[in-house]
Amino acid sequence: MPHVVIIGGSDAGIAAALRARELDPASEVTIVVADRYPNFSICGLPFYLSGEVGDWHALAHRTVLEIENEGVRLLLDHTATSIDPIAKVASLSNREGSTQNLMYDRLIIGTGAESIRPKIDGIDLPGVFVLRWMDEAFAMQRYMNERQPRSAIVVGGGYIGMEMADALTYQGIDVTVVEFFDSVLTTVDPEFSGKVRTELEAHGVRIATGIAVTGIVPSGDKLVISGSNNFSAAGDMVLVAVDARPNSRLALSAGVETGLKGAIKVDRFMRTSVPDIFAAGDCVETWHRLLNSYTYMPLGTTAHKQGRVAGENAVGGNRKFQGSLGTQAVKIFDLVAARTGLRDPEASAAGFDPFTVEFETWDHKAYYPGAEELFIRLTGNRTGKELLGAQMLGHKRSEVSKRIDVFASAIYNRMRIDELNDLDLSYTPPLSSPWDPIQMSAQAWSRRLSELIPH
Amino acid sequence: MPHVVIIGGSDAGIAAALRARELDPASEVTIVVADRYPNFSICGLPFYLSGEVGDWHALAHRTVLEIENEGVRLLLDHTATSIDPIAKVASLSNREGSTQNLMYDRLIIGTGAESIRPKIDGIDLPGVFVLRWMDEAFAMQRYMNERQPRSAIVVGGGYIGMEMADALTYQGIDVTVVEFFDSVLTTVDPEFSGKVRTELEAHGVRIATGIAVTGIVPSGDKLVISGSNNFSAAGDMVLVAVDARPNSRLALSAGVETGLKGAIKVDRFMRTSVPDIFAAGDCVETWHRLLNSYTYMPLGTTAHKQGRVAGENAVGGNRKFQGSLGTQAVKIFDLVAARTGLRDPEASAAGFDPFTVEFETWDHKAYYPGAEELFIRLTGNRTGKELLGAQMLGHKRSEVSKRIDVFASAIYNRMRIDELNDLDLSYTPPLSSPWDPIQMSAQAWSRRLSELIPH
Repeated sequence: MPHVVIIGGSDAGIAAALRARELDPASEVTIVVADRYPNFSICGLPFYLSGEVGDWHALAHRTVLEIENEGVRLLLDHTATSIDPIAKVASLSNREGSTQNLMYDRLIIGTGAESIRPKIDGIDLPGVFVLRWMDEAFAMQRYMNERQPRSAIVVGGGYIGMEMADALTYQGIDVTVVEFFDSVLTTVDPEFSGKVRTELEAHGVRIATGIAVTGIVPSGDKLVISGSNNFSAAGDMVLVAVDARPNSRLALSAGVETGLKGAIKVDRFMRTSVPDIFAAGDCVETWHRLLNSYTYMPLGTTAHKQGRVAGENAVGGNRKFQGSLGTQAVKIFDLVAARTGLRDPEASAAGFDPFTVEFETWDHKAYYPGAEELFIRLTGNRTGKELLGAQMLGHKRSEVSKRIDVFASAIYNRMRIDELNDLDLSYTPPLSSPWDPIQMSAQAWSRRLSELIPH
Repeated sequence: MPHVVIIGGSDAGIAAALRARELDPASEVTIVVADRYPNFSICGLPFYLSGEVGDWHALAHRTVLEIENEGVRLLLDHTATSIDPIAKVASLSNREGSTQNLMYDRLIIGTGAESIRPKIDGIDLPGVFVLRWMDEAFAMQRYMNERQPRSAIVVGGGYIGMEMADALTYQGIDVTVVEFFDSVLTTVDPEFSGKVRTELEAHGVRIATGIAVTGIVPSGDKLVISGSNNFSAAGDMVLVAVDARPNSRLALSAGVETGLKGAIKVDRFMRTSVPDIFAAGDCVETWHRLLNSYTYMPLGTTAHKQGRVAGENAVGGNRKFQGSLGTQAVKIFDLVAARTGLRDPEASAAGFDPFTVEFETWDHKAYYPGAEELFIRLTGNRTGKELLGAQMLGHKRSEVSKRIDVFASAIYNRMRIDELNDLDLSYTPPLSSPWDPIQMSAQAWSRRLSELIPH
């Protein structure tokens, strides 16, 4: 009857707890949660702030009661301040400052990541927000209720920046996105970021790229952002969504080894360098299935998987994390952009010999009403012809996200691009074509490659 | 410079021709097409007859010119009447009755299937139709234009029957479906057919099951159908959509071996029993990847794949057909029903030890607006825990068809059900959950199975 103590009540921590209890009903499982919102879908915050989710309670994947009914003990509003890995004790303190020690047999660290607050003047002004945890969303929501902002500036054109540009526009707020790089959504190729930018602008979002933000100053009721190239823009509020970093302070107190960006080093069994301490989620290095090495790539889906593995192994299991492919999807207004595996430059950097082809078709037979354009960028290895990555862009009703998942399943199984044609995929004219766009893009890839090779 | 002669201008024939030309630009390729509609999407006929596709020309995957531009010669309105496999000659006749002989180096038979006209009295009456080829659709369309039917009876509750019930309802026609078996859409489990029936009835379609139709008689302007259990129903038109059988008459004239339901026997390279004669599509037995044996299962997707393999091998290739999983999807009003692999009874019959679990969830996070119920029935092998099959039912906007394709890809790669949890599938709240429903159903399957095993 091991006592498993889990630090962190978000995706990784909860997945670990539920899995431990499922496999070993005799195990004692305690989760230490820094706020009072265990198992909340922080990926849902943009939809709460857009007003599409009316009641924030709905963001809970499970209620406290549901978690407790699984035999999991929750210590809400408690923070773990340090770990003694020899005595196997976690020191906790609550909001009132009272402390306690918690003995563990196995510890799982799932402390997640935190938003980076870049060192720019004015970042701490009222009306300037970052967004990751519930409390940060509540602060922003309160401000929006009180001030009724007409305009907002979003610093950072990544996933959160894009979703929040959509969300704030949905609220009737005038949005300007300021991005350091030359394009928004740099997680996809520039050909696709350009289309995402067009979609944003079509919905009235202003985009400024290649801008290094240097400061924020109040001016009357407004906040004025200034940046490189004499950039200046004013808004009623500012959201800074530039990047996240692993929260590994607690792990360091236990002497756990860290690596990339300060993330906790783990093996494929989610064990840290310290005996009986596991870690999972946004605070750890993630093994990449194709790169065959570790990366830092915080994603909720990965956190769930890693947590599940850690939970299983904490009660004596021997499960191996099978790796991430960086699969992700984001809805921006009516578009969905998705990717899995490696992009061309990433594949090159990893020593592959990539070849990338863009293919454009319809999401279903064009004769059936409502066909939408679908864009696929396929990356494969020139030599072995293995599928290395796919990016897809299309309408939110074009099954983009599950089409990318077919690619993800193919990469998982190390399929060659040509083999995609052998997959028995479903077809009905309102939803696809006899060769699904997935397969058409595979055929286009092979054709283009063979055109390059003299006969 | 081989001369490849292809008999049949539908999915298999065209795929074969294009592949042969792609791989061997020196090859001479002739397709003999029985009508003047090569490469038409016959799967699109219900949407033409519903009025959703205004112009039938749009049903062409490619125009005659586009096919000819690929270097393929088309002989329209020509039928192959016999094959001499020793002299390697196909005898053709056109509509006017004039004949010609066509020499071949390789022959590909892609003569497809034909609708079964059951032996019931009155089947040949005006106003009674079958539906497979363009001419049959035109005949039906003409009748509908002239007679403006208010009511129709559809005999057969399979895919075509279901799509036509939807299509005719879309035209404002009152539809009754008469089915021999106890449920419509017997390609999925009764739990799902029941939901499909509810969807049909919600749209005003009347369903009569367990009825053996015995005759059709004219009565005034109506056609009256009678059947077992004193069934009787009257309508302005009748569509008989009970089943299809392979069209293998031509193959028999060449001495080609046939098997199941009279379908042409082929090996994995799509070679028939006669040298230099290949066959593909709805006229052949299809190798099933999981059953490891042949079945008769005519599907457009399979026809394309088999045709492509036949075309490649006809110009000297060595490509193997990788088998079908019977993956299919159908939209019926707002529902999509899809399946891949084996259902429980099919798996049992094939010697597996199947276990099937039904799982119900939302297509995406319920807090995001528009979440719809999604039903999954998962079949796995009790002993090795391999995934054997999946059925899914949900809203047409719930990415059902590409979700089933993730299962199809998993079965293709012989994954265990538990391994589905390792797939790195995409997630964004408007489109999925951190564990996709695919993975939730896999977890439910494992949980239910372990509950059956005493600890």
